[in-house]
Amino acid sequence: SAVKKGDFLKPLDTFARRHIGPRPEEQLKMLKTLGFTNIQQLMEKAVPLSIRSNKFEIGEAWSESEALEEFKKIMSKNKLLKSFIGCGYYDTKVPYVILRNLIENPGWYTPYTPYQAEIAQGRLEMLLNFQTMVSDLCGLPVANASLLDEATAAGEAATMMFNLANKKKKVFLVSDDCHPQTIAVVKTRVEGIGMTLKVLPSKDFVIDEDVCGVLVQYPTTYGNVEDYSELTKRVHDAGAYVVVASDLLALTLLKPPGEFGADVVVGTAQRFGVPLGFGGPHAGFLATQEQHKRKIPGRLIGVSIDSRGKRALRMAMQTREQHIRRDRATSNICTAQALLANVSASYAIYHGPQGLKDIALKTHGAAKVLAAGLKKLGCAPVYSTFFDTIVVDVKKTRKTSQEFFDACVAEGVTIRVINEDLVGLSTDERTDAEHVDAVFRAFSNVTSKKLDFSAKSLEAAADPNSLPSAFKRTSSFLTHPIFNAHHSETEMMRYLFSLQSKDLSLQTAMIPLGSCTMKLNAAAEMIPVTWPEVNGLHPFVPPSHSEGYNQMLEWLGKDLAEVTGFHEISFQPNSGSQGEYAGLWAIRAYHEDRGDHHRNICLIPTSAHGTNPASAVMVGMKVVVVKCDSQGNIDLSDLKLQAEKHKDNLAAFMITYPSTHGVFEETVREAVQIVHENGGQVYMDGANLNAQVGFCSPGDLGADVCHLNLHKTFCIPHGGGGPGMGPIGVAKHLAPFLPGHPLRKTGGEKATSSVSAAPFSSASILPISWMYIRMMGTEGLKQATEVAILNANYMAKRLEKHYNVLYRGSSGFVAHEFIIDLRPFKEFDVTEEDVAKRLMDYNFHGPTMSWPVAGTLMIEPTESEPLFELDRLCDALINIREEIAEVEKGLIKAEDSVLRGAPHTADMVLSDSWNKKYPREKAAYPQPYLCENKFWPTVGRIDNVYGDRNVVCTCPPITDYQ
Amino acid sequence: SAVKKGDFLKPLDTFARRHIGPRPEEQLKMLKTLGFTNIQQLMEKAVPLSIRSNKFEIGEAWSESEALEEFKKIMSKNKLLKSFIGCGYYDTKVPYVILRNLIENPGWYTPYTPYQAEIAQGRLEMLLNFQTMVSDLCGLPVANASLLDEATAAGEAATMMFNLANKKKKVFLVSDDCHPQTIAVVKTRVEGIGMTLKVLPSKDFVIDEDVCGVLVQYPTTYGNVEDYSELTKRVHDAGAYVVVASDLLALTLLKPPGEFGADVVVGTAQRFGVPLGFGGPHAGFLATQEQHKRKIPGRLIGVSIDSRGKRALRMAMQTREQHIRRDRATSNICTAQALLANVSASYAIYHGPQGLKDIALKTHGAAKVLAAGLKKLGCAPVYSTFFDTIVVDVKKTRKTSQEFFDACVAEGVTIRVINEDLVGLSTDERTDAEHVDAVFRAFSNVTSKKLDFSAKSLEAAADPNSLPSAFKRTSSFLTHPIFNAHHSETEMMRYLFSLQSKDLSLQTAMIPLGSCTMKLNAAAEMIPVTWPEVNGLHPFVPPSHSEGYNQMLEWLGKDLAEVTGFHEISFQPNSGSQGEYAGLWAIRAYHEDRGDHHRNICLIPTSAHGTNPASAVMVGMKVVVVKCDSQGNIDLSDLKLQAEKHKDNLAAFMITYPSTHGVFEETVREAVQIVHENGGQVYMDGANLNAQVGFCSPGDLGADVCHLNLHKTFCIPHGGGGPGMGPIGVAKHLAPFLPGHPLRKTGGEKATSSVSAAPFSSASILPISWMYIRMMGTEGLKQATEVAILNANYMAKRLEKHYNVLYRGSSGFVAHEFIIDLRPFKEFDVTEEDVAKRLMDYNFHGPTMSWPVAGTLMIEPTESEPLFELDRLCDALINIREEIAEVEKGLIKAEDSVLRGAPHTADMVLSDSWNKKYPREKAAYPQPYLCENKFWPTVGRIDNVYGDRNVVCTCPPITDYQ
Ligand SMILES: Cc1ncc(COP(=O)(O)O)c(C=O)c1O
Ligand SMILES: Cc1ncc(COP(=O)(O)O)c(C=O)c1O
Ligand SMILES: O=C([O-])O
Repeated sequence: SAVKKGDFLKPLDTFARRHIGPRPEEQLKMLKTLGFTNIQQLMEKAVPLSIRSNKFEIGEAWSESEALEEFKKIMSKNKLLKSFIGCGYYDTKVPYVILRNLIENPGWYTPYTPYQAEIAQGRLEMLLNFQTMVSDLCGLPVANASLLDEATAAGEAATMMFNLANKKKKVFLVSDDCHPQTIAVVKTRVEGIGMTLKVLPSKDFVIDEDVCGVLVQYPTTYGNVEDYSELTKRVHDAGAYVVVASDLLALTLLKPPGEFGADVVVGTAQRFGVPLGFGGPHAGFLATQEQHKRKIPGRLIGVSIDSRGKRALRMAMQTREQHIRRDRATSNICTAQALLANVSASYAIYHGPQGLKDIALKTHGAAKVLAAGLKKLGCAPVYSTFFDTIVVDVKKTRKTSQEFFDACVAEGVTIRVINEDLVGLSTDERTDAEHVDAVFRAFSNVTSKKLDFSAKSLEAAADPNSLPSAFKRTSSFLTHPIFNAHHSETEMMRYLFSLQSKDLSLQTAMIPLGSCTMKLNAAAEMIPVTWPEVNGLHPFVPPSHSEGYNQMLEWLGKDLAEVTGFHEISFQPNSGSQGEYAGLWAIRAYHEDRGDHHRNICLIPTSAHGTNPASAVMVGMKVVVVKCDSQGNIDLSDLKLQAEKHKDNLAAFMITYPSTHGVFEETVREAVQIVHENGGQVYMDGANLNAQVGFCSPGDLGADVCHLNLHKTFCIPHGGGGPGMGPIGVAKHLAPFLPGHPLRKTGGEKATSSVSAAPFSSASILPISWMYIRMMGTEGLKQATEVAILNANYMAKRLEKHYNVLYRGSSGFVAHEFIIDLRPFKEFDVTEEDVAKRLMDYNFHGPTMSWPVAGTLMIEPTESEPLFELDRLCDALINIREEIAEVEKGLIKAEDSVLRGAPHTADMVLSDSWNKKYPREKAAYPQPYLCENKFWPTVGRIDNVYGDRNVVCTCPPITDYQ
Repeated sequence: SAVKKGDFLKPLDTFARRHIGPRPEEQLKMLKTLGFTNIQQLMEKAVPLSIRSNKFEIGEAWSESEALEEFKKIMSKNKLLKSFIGCGYYDTKVPYVILRNLIENPGWYTPYTPYQAEIAQGRLEMLLNFQTMVSDLCGLPVANASLLDEATAAGEAATMMFNLANKKKKVFLVSDDCHPQTIAVVKTRVEGIGMTLKVLPSKDFVIDEDVCGVLVQYPTTYGNVEDYSELTKRVHDAGAYVVVASDLLALTLLKPPGEFGADVVVGTAQRFGVPLGFGGPHAGFLATQEQHKRKIPGRLIGVSIDSRGKRALRMAMQTREQHIRRDRATSNICTAQALLANVSASYAIYHGPQGLKDIALKTHGAAKVLAAGLKKLGCAPVYSTFFDTIVVDVKKTRKTSQEFFDACVAEGVTIRVINEDLVGLSTDERTDAEHVDAVFRAFSNVTSKKLDFSAKSLEAAADPNSLPSAFKRTSSFLTHPIFNAHHSETEMMRYLFSLQSKDLSLQTAMIPLGSCTMKLNAAAEMIPVTWPEVNGLHPFVPPSHSEGYNQMLEWLGKDLAEVTGFHEISFQPNSGSQGEYAGLWAIRAYHEDRGDHHRNICLIPTSAHGTNPASAVMVGMKVVVVKCDSQGNIDLSDLKLQAEKHKDNLAAFMITYPSTHGVFEETVREAVQIVHENGGQVYMDGANLNAQVGFCSPGDLGADVCHLNLHKTFCIPHGGGGPGMGPIGVAKHLAPFLPGHPLRKTGGEKATSSVSAAPFSSASILPISWMYIRMMGTEGLKQATEVAILNANYMAKRLEKHYNVLYRGSSGFVAHEFIIDLRPFKEFDVTEEDVAKRLMDYNFHGPTMSWPVAGTLMIEPTESEPLFELDRLCDALINIREEIAEVEKGLIKAEDSVLRGAPHTADMVLSDSWNKKYPREKAAYPQPYLCENKFWPTVGRIDNVYGDRNVVCTCPPITDYQ
C-alpha cells in the first residue's frame, strides 16, 4: 500500500508510477530474465561506473494535481494584455473545434514524423493541404511543410540563394525594414557559411556580381506595402534572386509575390490559428518556383501511388533526416513544426478562402480605424499604405515611445516600441472596438488631446477595401474542394477525425523508433499548453510582463543544468538540430574570441546523425570523419590520429552519447581528453540523454556543450514531426557565447547572433518538460532511466535468439536502444523495409530503419512502454522471423511472400480477386489478438520510384475528385 | 463577405453558421428539390400558421470567443473553497488521462445509448466494467448501469421492494440518518405510488406485515458505521427486504452489505473520479441479489454471442426504453448517466483494488486526524466509528453551527451545518494537511482554544487501519484482470482508445435517431464543463457561494421560459423522464391543492413514448389510452370521448409535439381545449422541441407544463446514454408546485417533494445549453429549427420514391423527422433490423427502429448534418432498397442475403473460409467511398436469444482470458 501510518495527508496521485510502463513486479520478472534480482545490478553492468557522475538533485516529486495547481499560480503572474505589438506575431482565434479535436488530441500530437507513410496518410494529407495553402497564397507552385519560424525560413532561403548561385556569389542583401529578429537570424545563417550580409534600405540595393540574392519584407515591419516589381526585375536582370518575407493573411488581399516574380516567399503561418505562445511553436514556411524544387529545405510532401496503384502520399525529396546529405547538406532541419502546420492548414480549411479574406478585411479595417483615430489625436501614421500595421512618429508630441507604451499598458494594451520616437501598432483577428478605444484613450492621455470620438464612430468612414489597386490581389486562391467543404463544425470534426483514424499514434501502439524516444506525453503535462496564461503572451512584451514565464524558465534552466552537468542553458534553439547549430556557433565564437579564427575542423564519427555534419557545415566548419570500430564504438586511435593531424585547426568534436548504436562507450572520457588536448571543444549530441539522466552527464564526462531534445527525453510530444525544443547547456567558458536576441536580452556578454525568431523560441511547450521534471523528482527521473535501460535489455534478450543484436557494451548489455541486423536476409531478398512494413500488419510502427547502420532496425522502447507491449513487439518480430524462414527455406519466394505484400490494407485482403500465394488471414491476422483489435493501414506499400518520377506537392486538381 | 463597411470591429467567429450543416447555397438547392425558392415557403407549409406563436426574443448572438470569455467571468463568481460538506458529494481527483481521453473526447461523449450493440462494444465493455465494480464492492452479484443519482436510486429500490412484495405491503421504512436529500426523494417516489413512508431511527424499526422494506445508510449521513446484521435478519424474518445506501469508497474498507444480507445496495459513484459539479451529473447505482435480477430498474449490460459465435456485449433485459412496459412499468428511467458510469469505471481500472484502498485509507486517515484535532479543541466527534465523516455537537461551546461555518469560510473551507448545534465534516481524496489545518484554525478561532498542534503533528498517532474488526472488509474485490492491468498512463490511454475505436460516434457519421436529436455538441459548448469554476463546487454550499451558477441558472431559466412560453422553469429533473415525473407531480399537487384529490386519470395517446405512461403511473395516475387515426394523429373524437367520460377524474393529458410521428398536428389547440374543458391539465412532452423553437411554443399552444430534453434540443451530448437534463417549464398556476429541496430553496411556495438529489441536479452540464443559446441568439435558434425541418423534408423527398414515408402534415410535409415503412418487406422475410444492421456496413448508425411504429425506421437528421451526409444516408438507403429488391425478386433468399449477414466485421469478410452467397466486396464496400474510409463493426449481429437465455452481467471470469 502507498498509504503508511503517519503519512496519509500526502497526495496519492503520484506520477512516476504512471509514467513508467512496467509494474514493479513485472520489472522483477524482466530482471530475472536478464539474470538479476534488482535493477542496480543491471545498471552496474549497463552503465559503467567509470562514466557515472555522483551528483544529481532535482528535488522531491510533486503529485499531478499539486504540480498543475502550483504551475497555474506561477503562470498567472504573466500579464495578459491585448497586444498591438505585431512584428511577426499576431493574436488569432483558435477555432475551438480545432483546439479540442486536433491540438488537445493525442491522436494528433503523439505520432512521429510520417516516415512510415502507409500508416500516416492522415497527417500527410493535412501537410499537403498546408503546402497547397502556402503555395496558393504566395502565388508560387511549390511549398514545403514546414520550417521552424519565419526568421529561420528567411535564413534557409538565403542559403538556398547561395546554392542556386553555386556558392559563387557571397553577398546577400537584406532590406532594413524586415523584422529585426529576421535580420538577426539571417545574419547568423549567412555569416555561418562565410557569406556577407548587407542591411540597407531596399531602394538602395545595388545588385552587383557578388550578390546572390536579396530579402525584402511585404508588408514591411513598419507596415507599409511597397511595390517590389521594379526591384525584382532589377535583381533578376543581374542574375540574382529575390526572397520575400510575407504574411499569409495579408496575401489574401495583396497581390502575391509570385505574381511580381519573387523566387522564394517565406513567413510564418502563426496567425492562422496558432496561439502567440510567448513566441512559439508555430510553422514557418517557404514557397518557391518549380525549378527550385529540389533545392528546397525541410520536408516536402508528395503524391505517389501504392502497391495497388492507388493515390498515396509520402514525404518526397528526402527519406530520413538521418541521411541528410551530411556535410554536403545545405540545411540541418529535422524536427520541424508539423503539428502547427496542421493547425494552420485546418484553420484555412475551416474558414475557406472567403472566411480568410473576411478575417483579413476585419484586420485591415481595424487598422484603418486605428489610423484615423490616431491622426485625430495628432499621431498620424508615417505610412499610408498598410495592411495591419501602422507606425507613428511621436517625436512631435514631445513624449517618448516609452511614455506611450506605459499609457497603453495602463489601458490594458501593449504596443511596439521601435525606438525612442517610433511606435508600431498592429491589428489582428481579435482586435475589437474596445481594444482600439483603449489605444485612443492612452494616446489621448499622453497627448492631452481631447478624445471626442470612438472606434465605433470612426468605423463607418474607414474602408477596408481601399488598398491601392496596384497592390490588390485579383487572383483566386484555395479553390480546391478541401478548402470549400468543411465549414460547419460537424464536417470539420469529422474531417479531422477521419484523418486521425488513418494514423498510428501512441494511442494505438508503441512506436519503437530508435533515437526518437517516443515516450508517454502525459495528459497532466499537456494540459497547461492550452491555458490562456501560457499561450496568450506576445514574445516581445517587456520582461516585467512575463513574470510567470521568467520563473518557469529559470527553474527549468536550473533543472536542465543539473541534468546536463552544465553551467548555463539557452532556450533559444527550437529543435535538436538548432541546438547543434547554436552550440557549434558558441564553440566558433569562443575560438574566435581567443583569436583562433582558423579553428574550423569538426571531427564527426561515421555513426553520427545526419544533422551533426550538416550543422557543422552551417557554422562554416569542415567535417572530418572519424572511424568506428567493429563494435560500433569510436575508433579511439583514429580519433587520436585525426585530432593530432588537425591539431592546429581543430575546432570541435561531435559525439552522441550513448552512441547512436545504443552503447555507453567507456572510452568517452579519453575521447574528450584527446580532443581537448588538441585544442578542440566537445559537442555532445543529447538525443540519447534518456539513457543518462541521473546517472551520468555530458558536463561530468567533460563535454563543453550539448543539446537536449526536450521532445525526446523530456516528454514534449513529437506532433507528427514537431514541435520540439533543443535547448543547449554549456560549460562556463562557453556561456558568454550563448545566442542573443535583438528584442530581449538573452545569452551571454559576448552573445552570438540569434538562431531563432523568438528569444525562447517555442516557449509555450516548455511547460511540458517543466511538469515532467516536477512530477518525477530526483528519484522518478532516475527510475525512468533505469527502466528505459531495462526495457531495452529485456527486449534485446528476448530477440537475440532470433536476430543478431548488433553492438553492446563491454559487459554485454545495451543502453536504452539496440539494433537488430537484417542484412543476413538480403541474400534471399528479404529487406529491412519488408520487416518494417510487415510490422504494420501487427499494429506496430516499425523501428528506425537503416540508421545508423543500413540494413538494420533500431529499437528504443523507452521506460513508458509496459511489459505487455514489449512482449507484443517481441512476439511480432519472432513471428516475422518465422515468416522470413519460410523464404529462407525456399517455401515461398520473397516477392510472393507476406513480407513483401505488407502492409495489407482491408480492401486488399477482402478483395474478391485476392490472388496472393498466402491466405488472407495470414496477411491480416498473423496473431489472434488482431482479430479483436486491428489497426488498418489505409494504403499499400508506397511506390517511391513512381513518386520520385512524378513529384506533385499540392492537392491534386479538382478533376481528380470527380 | 461577412465583413461590411462600418461593421468590421465585430468578432467573426459567429456560431450559427458553424452549428448548421448545410451551407446557404446548399439550402437553396435542397429547397428547390422541394419546390421552394426560400425557406419561409417551406416553413409555411410545414409549420401551420394556426399553431405559430409570434413572440420569441432571446437576444443577439454572441461569437464563440465572446461567449466563452463572458461565461468565464460569470462562473468566476463562484466561491471555490475546499469542501468538507460531504453529505453524498465528495471531492475527487479526476485522473488527467481520463479527463483528456474520455471526458473531453467526442469519441466518448457523442455516441448514443448502445442500442446498436455491434457498433457500441467499447462503451458496453466499460459499462460492464462499471457493473462488475459495483457488484464487487457491494458484495452482490448483479448491478445495473446506471441510475441518475443516489437519491433516485434509493427511490427506485423502494419501488422495487414494493413490487417484490407484489404491491401488497405499502409501508417503507427509512432510517432518519440517511442523507436528507435521499429521504426527500424516496418520500416523493413512495408517496407517488400510494405507499407510506415512515422516517425513524433504524433501531426503532418495527417490521409489521405492512412493511415491504427498509432503507438504512452505511455509513450514515452522520458518519457512523453501524452493524445492520441483526436488523437485516429481523427484516428478512418478517418477509421484508433491506435496502442499504452505501459509499463505494467506504466499501473498499468496510464489510460489504451483500455480506450481511442486504437485498439491494444503492449509491453514487461520484467520488470515483467524477467532479462535484454543483450536484451532477454522476452515476447512481443499484446492486442486488441474483433472484431479483429481472426486477432491476435501468439498464443492464449483458454478455451474449454474435453471429460468429464470439463473445459480444449488449443491453440485456430490455431493448428500447420506448417500449418500457408502459403503464405496467415500475420505473421510467431512460437517459441515465452512462458517460459518468464510464468515468467511474475507468477510475477504478486506473487505480485498481489496491489504489482504491489507498485512497480510502488516506480519506479515513485524514478524518482520524481531524477527529483527534477537534477533540483537542473541545469539539470531540459524536460518533467514534466512522469512515470519512464526523459530526460535532457544538452546543457546549456556546456558539452556533453558523459561527463555525463562517469561521471555516474565513479560513477557506466549508463544512456542513446540520442544525443549530450539529456540524459535519467529511474528508475525501483531496483532503490534505493544509485543509485540515484550516479547519483547526477556524475551530480554534471560534472556541478560543489554543492551537498548539497541526495536522502533521497528529498524523503519526492516527491509525487509518483502526476500524473495528466487525466492520472490516476481508473479502477481495476487483480481482478481474481488467482492474489489474491498466495502471500506467500509456496503458490506460490505449485501453480507452481501443474501446473508443469500436464505437460509432458523431465523429464518424450522422446518427439519425428519430426522437433523439443527435445534433452537434460543439467544442465551445463543451469547454466550460471541465473548468474548475464549473465543476469544483459542492451542491450544498450557501447560495452566496454560487453566484456564478445563480446567474447562469437565472439567465438560462429566462431563456427556456421564452422558448417554452412558460412562466417558470425548474432545473431539478435530470432527464426527460424525470421532467415528466416532476411535471405530473405538479399537476397532481395542483389538483390536490384545489381539493380535487380524486383526479387521477391520465390520457395518453397510443403513439406516446414509453416513459409517458410509466411516469403517470409513478405519480399514482391511471393511464387511459387515446387512439390515433390512420395519419398517426390523435383521434380527436376519441380524445373527446375519453375526456368527457373521465371528466370528473381527469387529471392530465400527455401529448408529444410535434407528434412522435414527426407531424405538427393542427388540431393541437383543440385537443388542449378539450382537456381543459374537462378539468384536466396538459403535459407536453418536449422531446421534439427542436421542431418548435422560435416558431411555436408549448405555452402558446395552451399546455400547462412541458419538459425540455436539453440533451436533444439544447446540445448536451448524449454521452453514450446520458447525462441529460430535463428541466420543466410550467404555466403560472403550476409554479407553486415545482419541486423543492431540503437543503436549498427551490420550487414554489407549495413545493412538491424533491425529484433529484441535488437542487439543480446535473447543474454542471447546463453551461452547454447556456452557451448554445447565447451563441445562436434569436435568429440562430430560428434558423436551426428551419434547417432541421428542411433537412428532414429533403431526405423524405429523396427517399419517398424508394420507401413509403408514413405520416405527414396536411400540406404533405413532415416536421423534423419522418418514418419509413419496412413492413411491406416482411412478406419476404426482410426486417427493419436487417436494414438497420446493414446500414452499419455503410458507416452509419441505424435510425430509431420500430418506434413509434413497429416495423419502421424513424429518421431525424437535425440541422447540424451537412447536405453531404444527408445524401450519403439517402444513397445508402436507396442502395439497400436495391438489395431488398434482390430478395423481392427471388434472386436470393433473405436468410442468405447481404442484409441478413449484416453487419459484416473485417474478420468475417476476409476469412479464408468465406462461404456467403454474395461477394466479400459487396458485403464490406457497397459504396466506393467505403474503401477509403471504413468504420468496422467489431462483432457480427448479436444473438439476443442466447443472451436472454444466459444472462451474465459482470466481467467474465479470469479463465475466459487464458
Ligand atoms: C542523434 C540525433 N541527433 C540530432 C537529432 C536532431 O534533432 P531534432 O530532430 O530535434 O532537430 C536527432 C533526431 O532524431 C537525433 O536522433
Ligand atoms: C418522446 C420522448 N419522450 C420522453 C423521452 C425520455 O427522455 P429522457 O431519455 O431524457 O429521460 C424521450 C427520449 O428519447 C422521448 O423521445
Ligand atoms: O530523423 C530523426 O528525427 O531522427
